[in-house]
Order: sequence, then structure tokens, then C-alpha cells
Amino acid sequence: MHQQFKECIEECLACMTECNHCFDACLKEEDVKMVAECIRLTRECADICSFAATAMASGSQFSSQICQLCATICEACATECEKHAHHHEHCKKCAESCRKCADACRKMAS
Amino acid sequence: MHQQFKECIEECLACMTECNHCFDACLKEEDVKMVAECIRLTRECADICSFAATAMASGSQFSSQICQLCATICEACATECEKHAHHHEHCKKCAESCRKCADACRKMAS
Amino acid sequence: MHQQFKECIEECLACMTECNHCFDACLKEEDVKMVAECIRLTRECADICSFAATAMASGSQFSSQICQLCATICEACATECEKHAHHHEHCKKCAESCRKCADACRKMAS
Amino acid sequence: MHQQFKECIEECLACMTECNHCFDACLKEEDVKMVAECIRLTRECADICSFAATAMASGSQFSSQICQLCATICEACATECEKHAHHHEHCKKCAESCRKCADACRKMAS
Repeated sequence: MHQQFKECIEECLACMTECNHCFDACLKEEDVKMVAECIRLTRECADICSFAATAMASGSQFSSQICQLCATICEACATECEKHAHHHEHCKKCAESCRKCADACRKMAS
Repeated sequence: MHQQFKECIEECLACMTECNHCFDACLKEEDVKMVAECIRLTRECADICSFAATAMASGSQFSSQICQLCATICEACATECEKHAHHHEHCKKCAESCRKCADACRKMAS
Repeated sequence: MHQQFKECIEECLACMTECNHCFDACLKEEDVKMVAECIRLTRECADICSFAATAMASGSQFSSQICQLCATICEACATECEKHAHHHEHCKKCAESCRKCADACRKMAS
Repeated sequence: MHQQFKECIEECLACMTECNHCFDACLKEEDVKMVAECIRLTRECADICSFAATAMASGSQFSSQICQLCATICEACATECEKHAHHHEHCKKCAESCRKCADACRKMAS
């Protein structure tokens, strides 16, 4: 496997785990309503990250297009999480992971 | 997150990647028929590993039961991959990753 | 494919769709906090339903064990949704779909 | 839910099931090597169909982009399955299901 694939897979899997952790932590917050969009996006972001990692690891001919979509969803998730980053440490860490993953995916897609 | 969760998540994600890589490599082998069951099991094992990692990272109340099932499928995948381990390096590495993941999942489930 | 498989796959896919719809509708409710556990469980239930349908359709040797786990998660999701069934039509419909799917999965698993 | 969503979700779930069934049937064929690309693509097509159905049912803002990608993968899977349609009934049925799903997804995406 190319090194570039390896790095992008690792970013996707790290992002998947941060998103799933943030999803859980948001559901346990006092003000769930404020993070409702965060809950929605962390779920979707975790799922596309898993799908992108699977595509790259299994040599999919669609890896570029899937990584492009993954980058788009990661950016949206990061933007939402950043709104809550000063309140919730889990949102801050999730946003950082999403930005890194989006960068790696864009590099892959190009 | 507990350290034990963290380690089990990492084993699941590593196993998921090895299984997906083995799936791809098996499909490119000269004798695909010989590794047909390997192809079937690496797919299923990759998918349950992703599901188990998601459950643990998002604090699922079903993490134990999911990890128990994951251990069962990992063992079956390892047993199949080991049949081809002397021929195919990817099967050897996949089998090792499956055994490690099964161990981590059993520990989690207990 | 056996008729029993076909019916169970259909229940799983119907339950997956109801759970995903309920997940969305819960996130749009005025009182999100009240349905936080519903959001968590509908996600997990949708995912195991998809996994169970995949297993059955692709002739997995683990179909029984996966359906057993699916039944357990469906029951938990139904029990949670029923708490909100008098307030939210989407929770009522989701609970019904989960009970039907749990029944079908238990029959499959036995 | 809009009727158009409902129809597209149904096509995605039907395609997912046909792809998973074709995956299984291809792995049991005498000449597995001949259908190796079919095995690869039915897996990926089943997974993106499940992801697209989830996105639509849960009101994802990325439904259009996901359906666009789903249409692309469905077309590739159909083209591959059609090569074996005269030999294998399961490939013929799978190709038909993929074409119908691609149509529905393109309509959704536009």
C-alpha cells in the first residue's frame, strides 16, 4: 500500500473515533438541543470516514471520489463542532480531527 | 475513555484495515477459488470490527455483546486465513491481526 | 433464498428506515434532551439492522448470532421509543417497527 | 418524507439486497476468478446503497452528493454484472437492480 493511502486511512480512522466519542459526549450534555446538529454530523462523519478507510484499504477504484465526499462532510462537521469548542473539549478535539482528515482526504482525492 | 476501550478500539481498527487489504489482495490472486472463503470472511470481519469500534467509542450499552460477536467472527476469519498463510503474506498478516483483535474483544466482553 | 430469510431481511430494512427517520425527527424536536437516549438507540438499531440484512442476504454463517444481537438492540430501542410514543408519532411508528423486527430476528436466530 | 425520497430509499435497499446476494452467489461459482471484479463491486455497491438509504431517511444535507456517488458505483457494478448476465441469473438480476437504483439516485441528486 502506498504511504499516502496509509496516512489517509489513519486520519479517517482517528476521525471516526473522535466523531463517535463526540456523538456520545454531546448526548450526555446538559444542553443537548444546542449540540443537536453536532450529533447529526458526527454520526454522518464517522460513517463516511469508515467507508473511506474501507475503500482505500481494499483498493477501490472510487477512492478519490469517496475521499472527496469525506472531505466535504468532515469540513461541515468541523465547522459545527467549532461553534461549541470553547464550551466542550470533545467538540474542540473532534473539530481538529475533522480538519486533519479533510486535509488528508483532499490530498488523496487530487 | 478507559484505557482498555482505547486498546480494543485500536485492535478493531487495525484488524478492519488488514481484513480489507486481504480482501483486495485475495481478489487479485491467481487462484481466487482457493481463497473464496477468505474473501467472504475478511469482508464480514472488517464490517463487525468497524461496528465494534463504533460501539465502544460511542459508549454503547451493547459493547460487550458486540465485542463477543466480533471475537467469534475474528477467530473464524483467522482460522480461514491461516490455511493460506504459507502461500500469501497478506493472509498471514490478516490472521495475526484477527487473533490479536479477538483477544482484545474477549477481554472487553468479559 | 429461503422465504424466512426474505421476510426477516424486509423487517430489518423497514426497521432501519424507521429508526433513521426517528433519529432525524428526534433531533428536530423542541425537547431534544428528553429523547437523547432515543437518538442514541435509533442510530445503533439502524446500523445493526443493516448489518443483519447484509449477513442474511450474503449467506453469512453468523446470521443467527447477528440476528440474536439485532433482536436485543431492537427491543431496547422499542422500549425507549415507547416512552415517547404518546408525544411523538415517529417514536410510536419506530417502536412498532422495532418490535416486528425483533420478532422476525428471534425466529431467524432459533 | 417526500415520495421521491421514499422511492429512492426503496431502490437503494432493493439494490443492496441484490448486490449482497450476488456477492454470495459469485463466491460459490465454479469459476470465481471470472467474477472477481463482480465480487468486489457488489460489496462496494451494497455498502454505498446502505449509506445512501441512511442519509435520505435521516434527512442528511449531503443526500444529493451521496446519491450522485451511489449512482456512479451502481453503474459500474451493473456494467460488470452484465458481462456475466448470460451465464449467471444472479448477475442479471443484480445488474437490473443496479440500473434502477442508479436512475433513482440520479433523479434524487438533480
